[in-house]
Amino acid sequence: MSAASPETSENSDLPGVTLVGGGPGAWDLITVRGMNALRSADVILTDHLGPTDQLEKLVEVADKEIIDVSKLPYKRQVSQDKTNELIVAHALAGKRVVRLKGGDPYVFGRGFEELAHCRAAGISCEVVPGVTSAVSVPAAVDIPITQRGMVHSFTVVSGHLPPGHPNSLVDWSALARTGGTLSVIMGVRNVAAITAALIDADLDPQTPAAVIQEGTTEGQRQVRCPLGELAQTMAEHDIQAPAVYVIGEVAGL
Amino acid sequence: MSAASPETSENSDLPGVTLVGGGPGAWDLITVRGMNALRSADVILTDHLGPTDQLEKLVEVADKEIIDVSKLPYKRQVSQDKTNELIVAHALAGKRVVRLKGGDPYVFGRGFEELAHCRAAGISCEVVPGVTSAVSVPAAVDIPITQRGMVHSFTVVSGHLPPGHPNSLVDWSALARTGGTLSVIMGVRNVAAITAALIDADLDPQTPAAVIQEGTTEGQRQVRCPLGELAQTMAEHDIQAPAVYVIGEVAGL
Repeated sequence: MSAASPETSENSDLPGVTLVGGGPGAWDLITVRGMNALRSADVILTDHLGPTDQLEKLVEVADKEIIDVSKLPYKRQVSQDKTNELIVAHALAGKRVVRLKGGDPYVFGRGFEELAHCRAAGISCEVVPGVTSAVSVPAAVDIPITQRGMVHSFTVVSGHLPPGHPNSLVDWSALARTGGTLSVIMGVRNVAAITAALIDADLDPQTPAAVIQEGTTEGQRQVRCPLGELAQTMAEHDIQAPAVYVIGEVAGL
Repeated sequence: MSAASPETSENSDLPGVTLVGGGPGAWDLITVRGMNALRSADVILTDHLGPTDQLEKLVEVADKEIIDVSKLPYKRQVSQDKTNELIVAHALAGKRVVRLKGGDPYVFGRGFEELAHCRAAGISCEVVPGVTSAVSVPAAVDIPITQRGMVHSFTVVSGHLPPGHPNSLVDWSALARTGGTLSVIMGVRNVAAITAALIDADLDPQTPAAVIQEGTTEGQRQVRCPLGELAQTMAEHDIQAPAVYVIGEVAGL
């Protein structure tokens, strides 16, 4: 018997949905707010990234319904439509729903699409930010994304489409000239095209670069080399997704 | 009486230093790892940003020595040299030291300088990443820094120096052309020069923009307007640091 309050949407008596950024992979790099959301959840929809593999360190998993909605790159995919549908269906059934994502929900996480979908269904939706892999994975190998007197900006870019692809929204030649660090995520498959485009736009092939696979987890490994050798080096070391590569003077510190 | 292990530095028997990213301001947007580091600390050196004002929600502060080493913009400053000196002195005295920063230690946080200073003194130093204000503060007002089909990159840039300043390391005309979202932090004072430089480089003055002051805290407020009106709008609303401004289509969602 709680006090009445003005109803602002049809389903405001439902507990609603929380989109949680799970961070780069290590279980304890989720935020305190994110952990608390997981603890109060009835249903958790997980990615393959973030702290999914060690969820039991954060919550009593036996009390929860855990649903895997991973989009494995170039492999098994749960469609975004299906994920949206599952989120809303459980929320409408009166469950507290957490959608747990790797990194931050808004850094290539489709978080806004899920937020909009919930609100369109009259379901309240809160977003809990996360530690983005684009910054924290380089940090895990002592690469600072900025450094006073060296670099005062950084750009985070998705490498899931190659330069020149008709759907690409990235001006790689402008990125070559910002003077800032570049942090490329989802760019393993297209590294040859991306590094070639940057060098074509006059970014020095001797610019330091580093790639980090599975950063912050037990499987973490890194390789460093000049930009001009990055594609070949990644192939030689069989670097696989998930990986982040960093291009800029900071990779040489 | 612990088992002997190879000593790799002179002071490896000391507990060492942890640089912790405290997140954008709300106390529970620190990571679980960061909270645990605070709990095991003897000495905490704080900024004016991050969860400093609500530290008692994270730790038993009476058990800790809390030292304020804030650098208030254009006001009282504890010099970086002094901060480095305090960190090392307490660590050499055998204290567990946490250096608590706003946001992420490597996003304009001088984290690498403190790390290098510790290691030069033979003190072990670990970095715990944080939720960066550049992404999480826009998120707090439902602005996604990326959005599928709209923008596939974003640049985080320090606005502490105006375009054209002799010490500036930022090519603002390249930033105007990346096609990505711009998130400017520490840019309140220089907003007129920054927005003028972007428009001079052909960024459309009608591009949506938003500024958020004290994001994720009780003092949070936001204003939205086109890029060409941002400087005047911020002056009219007396926007003060700390504030983040976001320029790009996502600010119009």
